Amino acid sequence: MFFALIKFIKNANIFYFSMKRKRRIKHIIQSQQFSRDFLESLFKEADKMRKIARRGRSNLLKNKVMATTFYEPSTRTRFSFESAMIKLGGHVITTENAREFSSVAKGETLNDTIKVMDKYADVIVLRHFQEGAASAAAAVSNVPIINAGDGPGHHPTQSLLDIYTIKRELGKIDRITIAMVGDLKHGRTVRSLAYLLTKFHNIRIYFVAPKVCKMKKDILDYLNKKGVHYEETEDLNKVLPLVDCVYMTRVQKERFKSKDDYNKAKGFYRLDKNNIGLLKSNSIIMHPLPRIDEISPDIDQDPRSAYFRQAENGLYIRMALLKKVLT
Amino acid sequence: MFFALIKFIKNANIFYFSMKRKRRIKHIIQSQQFSRDFLESLFKEADKMRKIARRGRSNLLKNKVMATTFYEPSTRTRFSFESAMIKLGGHVITTENAREFSSVAKGETLNDTIKVMDKYADVIVLRHFQEGAASAAAAVSNVPIINAGDGPGHHPTQSLLDIYTIKRELGKIDRITIAMVGDLKHGRTVRSLAYLLTKFHNIRIYFVAPKVCKMKKDILDYLNKKGVHYEETEDLNKVLPLVDCVYMTRVQKERFKSKDDYNKAKGFYRLDKNNIGLLKSNSIIMHPLPRIDEISPDIDQDPRSAYFRQAENGLYIRMALLKKVLT
Amino acid sequence: MFFALIKFIKNANIFYFSMKRKRRIKHIIQSQQFSRDFLESLFKEADKMRKIARRGRSNLLKNKVMATTFYEPSTRTRFSFESAMIKLGGHVITTENAREFSSVAKGETLNDTIKVMDKYADVIVLRHFQEGAASAAAAVSNVPIINAGDGPGHHPTQSLLDIYTIKRELGKIDRITIAMVGDLKHGRTVRSLAYLLTKFHNIRIYFVAPKVCKMKKDILDYLNKKGVHYEETEDLNKVLPLVDCVYMTRVQKERFKSKDDYNKAKGFYRLDKNNIGLLKSNSIIMHPLPRIDEISPDIDQDPRSAYFRQAENGLYIRMALLKKVLT
Repeated sequence: MFFALIKFIKNANIFYFSMKRKRRIKHIIQSQQFSRDFLESLFKEADKMRKIARRGRSNLLKNKVMATTFYEPSTRTRFSFESAMIKLGGHVITTENAREFSSVAKGETLNDTIKVMDKYADVIVLRHFQEGAASAAAAVSNVPIINAGDGPGHHPTQSLLDIYTIKRELGKIDRITIAMVGDLKHGRTVRSLAYLLTKFHNIRIYFVAPKVCKMKKDILDYLNKKGVHYEETEDLNKVLPLVDCVYMTRVQKERFKSKDDYNKAKGFYRLDKNNIGLLKSNSIIMHPLPRIDEISPDIDQDPRSAYFRQAENGLYIRMALLKKVLT
Repeated sequence: MFFALIKFIKNANIFYFSMKRKRRIKHIIQSQQFSRDFLESLFKEADKMRKIARRGRSNLLKNKVMATTFYEPSTRTRFSFESAMIKLGGHVITTENAREFSSVAKGETLNDTIKVMDKYADVIVLRHFQEGAASAAAAVSNVPIINAGDGPGHHPTQSLLDIYTIKRELGKIDRITIAMVGDLKHGRTVRSLAYLLTKFHNIRIYFVAPKVCKMKKDILDYLNKKGVHYEETEDLNKVLPLVDCVYMTRVQKERFKSKDDYNKAKGFYRLDKNNIGLLKSNSIIMHPLPRIDEISPDIDQDPRSAYFRQAENGLYIRMALLKKVLT
Repeated sequence: MFFALIKFIKNANIFYFSMKRKRRIKHIIQSQQFSRDFLESLFKEADKMRKIARRGRSNLLKNKVMATTFYEPSTRTRFSFESAMIKLGGHVITTENAREFSSVAKGETLNDTIKVMDKYADVIVLRHFQEGAASAAAAVSNVPIINAGDGPGHHPTQSLLDIYTIKRELGKIDRITIAMVGDLKHGRTVRSLAYLLTKFHNIRIYFVAPKVCKMKKDILDYLNKKGVHYEETEDLNKVLPLVDCVYMTRVQKERFKSKDDYNKAKGFYRLDKNNIGLLKSNSIIMHPLPRIDEISPDIDQDPRSAYFRQAENGLYIRMALLKKVLT
């Protein structure tokens, strides 16, 4: 299904332009759409945005309106987009629970909703509970759609801020060794990040997960095809000394069938004062947040703890994306 | 009750001015308050607003704050008002579910809420679940109230955008023939539109509805009094070749007592590839949206399908109204 | 506990500066943190803000973003802060029900939420259901926290607007006589106001409450210590002729064990045409709103009824506070 989607997307050709209104419309739908060139250019833009945001605001998008249309709540992601829009001089109309509060309840299709919203906004940031919602929206929209998460599907701005954080923190992406830790089976952030890493050279990945939530075969097959070296293990402490980056994710209790399994898994995957010493001094710790107990707050002050800087990078990446789709 | 309301309103004289604060306060409460002169001037203003919105933004309301206070959710209407305010340079404070989230739960009256809100905002856009809420609010407010729907009552900005769409699409309102189709008994949009049409000359209306949801007697009586020609029928296809405009509305399943009746009614009132050919080439199809299945998406690309342009017109009409009440 | 808190706060020293980011961060957490000098300077600032708001807007905070993060809804308070920010040229990102809509549901701590939010906003206005939430947030935030109510704890901007209203309406705070009426046991506004009044000279307070909701001993002890004269009574009408200000609060039905008690209490504590004549001609009536029936709308037009002016003062006080913490 993974590759079927990529194929569909290449055929549909919805990402980079549409001939409606006789101009190019760019949509941000999934990590798979980005080339290495796009990523490099986005990183440079994000660096500029950092300066703009710290200095004050830009007037670049002063005539633009962004609609944040969230069919499931995510205050963090929404605030990040809205702050990004404001810092570029733009304006925001917002709904934090469109599912309950909109015409969906009356039976309206997403297509119709989008075809009305694109009259009121210059860009639509869409969070939806159904996989494929964002690409369906892009197919009918007259303004750019940015996917802010479509259920179990994609969350491309998260993986862009992830890979930008690696670049910024480590100074490079080629030749890094990274551990992805936790619920690799259900976590869409690690799946997307693994995909994006194939665009870089000499990457080594350790997938650290309990048996019940190992990385799925579609991604492993894709890495094989692209010649990316990976290894699977259950032992976090063994890989800590080997990596440049450890990417922690929540181990979600509700996924586990037995309480024993859950507790054991949870035990393996905790970074704290006891094992952070195993990490190299110039390694970094990442986490998409929110965290529960997989990283102890005790180590938040450690310079290697990059997760709050990672959240901050989300602001600059989203500013850069808004600039790219709106100008 | 309908006429009693009109009489009450004429006596109360709340629409055009109030001597509080010794200046004129204009409220937008119901379609019945507008003269033909007002409508003509509003259409001209809306045409100007279209240009402003497409060019960028105006600074006209740069010092003004609009509060969108929605006691029942309506993301579409709310976004339309908020985008309108922003495009005129104004600012927005918003609540999408005031009923649940406000002091109403503590037993506060709407009067008190309005008398606090008018300290924080220069105009209040009010959506409420109770008929008469907007006019009650206007009676105590020190700033203009715009009714964005008061339960089964009125939704004047919808009927203004409807009649503006007719003007813009057909080039005139006098001498048109229009079919209103669907649930005419409960639909407030068709009721208001029928009322507004009496201000124009040589109008012919076909009311197309199943027996269980025919247009109510108060409106028919009023049309008789004003000498407007109308005809009632159940047969949509018969009237399609005769009209300049077909105004479709949702047939609401929950209104019907028997499933058979509903299915039959639904069957009658669907526009699609099979019957759109019956329409004249220069006719238009309107719908207040959201639609369910009464218009097939197959005909969305037909140039006669005006419903998404109608939604867009909502933006310009609301910009024009905001300008009128705030300057 | 009351004094333990004050002591804790003095030790923690979180209000006026923090050495994080090597600059002073000011937080607004509770009434107890303000000196008389601060209050006098705030009143002057608020007077200036009144002029700015009535003239239009300022550009003072044009590069600043305020996040209103409300874990329990309060549309009134939220609108007041947001309007204040807009009138100073600033920008707003907002959530009206963070408790339901945010990562809290996933088990995230408030600390982590704040450490992400402070990347997206220059000031965080926090309403929370737990006492102490605001000071906990201030301890980790890199941007100013303004407490907009922390459950049964504090609501400092309310007490600031209360005392500013006294100053503005009576021309002075020293030497006034005030009656606080209603549920003094649970009402945080009267508790905070009593505390703030100790900073002024020759204050006389009448606590007017039914036995079941008398002012708690901690505040009475504190007044004794500070030498503030107070008297407790159940008889409102007896004190009305004696006071410069009567501060009414809601008598909350759910607090009473017997219906008889409630009805009796309710009977005592109603201001209307029957007893307003007992008040001196230059006295004022205040209320934090929302009111239920403790003040009859019949007397809203009486020049002594200051409660809607009090709500308006909330706007100017919040503008003044935003200026103080952001510049």
